[in-house]
Amino acid sequence: MISDQELLRTFGKRVQKARRRKGISQEALAHESGLHRTYIGSVERGERNISLLNILTLSTVLEISPAVLVEGLKRMPQE
Amino acid sequence: MISDQELLRTFGKRVQKARRRKGISQEALAHESGLHRTYIGSVERGERNISLLNILTLSTVLEISPAVLVEGLKRMPQE
Repeated sequence: MISDQELLRTFGKRVQKARRRKGISQEALAHESGLHRTYIGSVERGERNISLLNILTLSTVLEISPAVLVEGLKRMPQE
Repeated sequence: MISDQELLRTFGKRVQKARRRKGISQEALAHESGLHRTYIGSVERGERNISLLNILTLSTVLEISPAVLVEGLKRMPQE
């Protein structure tokens, strides 16, 4: 079973990859998205359970579909 | 420009549609996902800025890709 930490880390790596493909720094992504740089860093490290609206903002700025960021991620219901 | 409310409402309608396609009640979805029924209701009405992990749980229980729930949703960066 994939842990929550692994799911968030996979999501974060996808954000990082998209940001690097776009050739911008965490600072620039933070600036363009109106989020804080330390927040971007923690999302990329998988330390944040990011909200839907922030997912949509990041994907807009990164010019990728939000679908690509969550594709294939599966979480089992908690007890 | 699409408001946050509209984005969350679109997401919520997709959850509702997937739940009805599966033929289960909000109560059953709540029970299977380990979330509260009133929470499911508010997500379907677009009243919640749901977190990534809860999106992944709902999509697992609803047996749809999380990508389908967020596809095409675009949010402009906030000031």
